[in-house]
Amino acid sequence: MSRDRGVHVVVLGAGFGGLTFCQAFQHPNATLTLVDRTNHHLFQPLLYQVATAGLSAPEIAAPIRGVLSDRQDVTVLMDEVKSIDLDRRVVVLGQTVLTYDYLVLALGGITSYFGHPEWEQFAPGLKSLDDAMRIRRDVLLAFEQAENTDDPGRRRDLTTMIVVGGGPTGVELAGAFAELSRTVLARDFRRMDPTQARVILVEAGPRVLGHLPVELSESARAQLAALGVEVLVNTKVREIRAGEVHLVDGQVLRASNIIWAAGVAASPLTATLGVERDRAGRLKVAEDLSLPGHERTFAIGDLAAVIGPDGKAVPGVSPAAMQMGRHVARVIREELDAVHGIQPSRRRFAYWDKGTMATIGRSAAVAKMGPLELSGLPAWAAWLLVHLVFLIGFRNKLAVLLQWAYSYFTYKRGSRIIMGRGTT
Amino acid sequence: MSRDRGVHVVVLGAGFGGLTFCQAFQHPNATLTLVDRTNHHLFQPLLYQVATAGLSAPEIAAPIRGVLSDRQDVTVLMDEVKSIDLDRRVVVLGQTVLTYDYLVLALGGITSYFGHPEWEQFAPGLKSLDDAMRIRRDVLLAFEQAENTDDPGRRRDLTTMIVVGGGPTGVELAGAFAELSRTVLARDFRRMDPTQARVILVEAGPRVLGHLPVELSESARAQLAALGVEVLVNTKVREIRAGEVHLVDGQVLRASNIIWAAGVAASPLTATLGVERDRAGRLKVAEDLSLPGHERTFAIGDLAAVIGPDGKAVPGVSPAAMQMGRHVARVIREELDAVHGIQPSRRRFAYWDKGTMATIGRSAAVAKMGPLELSGLPAWAAWLLVHLVFLIGFRNKLAVLLQWAYSYFTYKRGSRIIMGRGTT
Repeated sequence: MSRDRGVHVVVLGAGFGGLTFCQAFQHPNATLTLVDRTNHHLFQPLLYQVATAGLSAPEIAAPIRGVLSDRQDVTVLMDEVKSIDLDRRVVVLGQTVLTYDYLVLALGGITSYFGHPEWEQFAPGLKSLDDAMRIRRDVLLAFEQAENTDDPGRRRDLTTMIVVGGGPTGVELAGAFAELSRTVLARDFRRMDPTQARVILVEAGPRVLGHLPVELSESARAQLAALGVEVLVNTKVREIRAGEVHLVDGQVLRASNIIWAAGVAASPLTATLGVERDRAGRLKVAEDLSLPGHERTFAIGDLAAVIGPDGKAVPGVSPAAMQMGRHVARVIREELDAVHGIQPSRRRFAYWDKGTMATIGRSAAVAKMGPLELSGLPAWAAWLLVHLVFLIGFRNKLAVLLQWAYSYFTYKRGSRIIMGRGTT
Repeated sequence: MSRDRGVHVVVLGAGFGGLTFCQAFQHPNATLTLVDRTNHHLFQPLLYQVATAGLSAPEIAAPIRGVLSDRQDVTVLMDEVKSIDLDRRVVVLGQTVLTYDYLVLALGGITSYFGHPEWEQFAPGLKSLDDAMRIRRDVLLAFEQAENTDDPGRRRDLTTMIVVGGGPTGVELAGAFAELSRTVLARDFRRMDPTQARVILVEAGPRVLGHLPVELSESARAQLAALGVEVLVNTKVREIRAGEVHLVDGQVLRASNIIWAAGVAASPLTATLGVERDRAGRLKVAEDLSLPGHERTFAIGDLAAVIGPDGKAVPGVSPAAMQMGRHVARVIREELDAVHGIQPSRRRFAYWDKGTMATIGRSAAVAKMGPLELSGLPAWAAWLLVHLVFLIGFRNKLAVLLQWAYSYFTYKRGSRIIMGRGTT
């Protein structure tokens, strides 16, 4: 593809890292091409609310073209990345071949089953809108089927949900499932009692939210228990089959819906680049976030293994990805501005930790911001505020706020729609 | 299944007719069972807006259980109707067998291909949320693929949409597709120009909206043309193949997306009842809406062939279905109240025609209410008001209003999300 002017920057992935880069980078001598498998930027921290019928899919997704429609210098392509040749500076897509001057790798992560890809069919992960819609459909359908059956054993299986993994996603899913059955669905069935539904959270380590201080983990466990979630810690999974989680201690847990929230790994494309990676497949980067030996290729977001100046790994969270996107935008801009002068030495990336939080349910959450540790209502209020401020797009913000207010005051949820029954 | 008390009324279908019946019928001696294939009541008049990315699916669907959660006398079952035995008063579902004292048939209609079911795979109809999501995905995906190709012929096919059938659904779809390409997507592509997209509306009869006065048909045609829709009247389809509409005159129209909006027929279950039907498969009913010879079985909505006192057929529109639901509720209630007295002679159903309308685009519509005929902005304002008033559920109303205001002022659409690419 011929380029009329200047420098061509190719960005792969329109998640928090890739999209923030595009928004932060604009230069009179440069054009951008942004490639994503989907046509939307996803507000992933709220994906669990789509899976649990709290929000509709379009409320947490913004069409990439719409976000960037004023940027005549950006071409958006919805396509798959087939291969990347870092030496020849070529990206092969399904329909197009792109050459570039700068490459920003922001492809994010995938659900990892720790060497057991066959578990995916029995325990889907939660990374995309399609995943969320599938989980929503399967869980709501199981309650409908429970109302249709007279077999108590089958009814128990249909109304049991197992979440594997006690990180933020697992905790948020388990809490939302418990609320769904205890409050939202409570009065809507006549033959069976949704409040008897079981939600089991299985964590291999000694506590949930292991990245937070011990007191907050303990608070999260207590808040989950108050919602009726059975929290099993120090509980390792040996195998997953259809409707069954086999534990290392020999116990077998049965449930129609099993959700896998235990692991993420970097996009499998990282394995094809011939560069150094860490155990989770993330690309090792230099201090400026470029790949060692490929100074015009950068890796950002969940794809990058970044060690901060303090020697600690930067966590795979959206604020980190956005900060990386802005950092790389600045590095390239400074380099282009200096193109006829002296090349500047590149800046070092510094992560600013804004804190971390997880919501558990209505007025239930934990949060850590610097030295501040919050639990319950204050943490929940902080969570609400932060998520609304960072939701991309005015329309989505208003719609989400409306939904949340509706759910809060009515104990109902707006998106309890079963679709796509014929598919899958 | 044993019933503890009194009379058991089974309602099949939770569309406008069936749901209105349940809301209107309540009696101390009666319990109800409402059966639907889906878990939601669908506001079908706005389905085309989901198909054209204007609204999200949950915004036009209300969970049936949620609507009826206060009614302890109503059991909702999400299940398929397998067979009905009118003489033994038995309904066989997938999971359950129901016996009844009264039966209300409100199963609605399906897309009819006039004896060519093989056309469905090439030209989907628009009756369910799944249909709408499929059309939305396929149309948005075609624009994405058009941006990815350099072949002008393929690009033209990808950006052509053919709508077969010039009734209200066809007119509304064609207008919304034209607006989508002319305004919403106009600034979002870099390699191809969405305003060059073609929308072709094919109608076999001499004019669109044939049920309206000639002046309104002409106005609708002019408003469609102003939006860029190519309206072909007196144009009969001979065959539909993958990406091709073959006309009777030998012409072949090519388009990646072909939508069938030309025919509806009553639910196929009507054929199994052994009672009299009209050509479209609708059940012939007595003046009280009961089936002749089966006085405790009623047919309402699109399933029923109802002739008004004026000798004219009652149209298959939602206000008619709702009026029928209320009528049957009253008939059964009066019969139950008189159970120890003298059986009343049953009321005759009288249809009150509130008028008819179709929207074409932003500030473009036609409407006929009694002697009043409206076009353009006044008709559009009337359409907006009527649809908001009748949307079930406070939450949906607010969300839809918000979406419409957003779209009106920004020329954007909120639901441009491509999902389920892997499925189908």
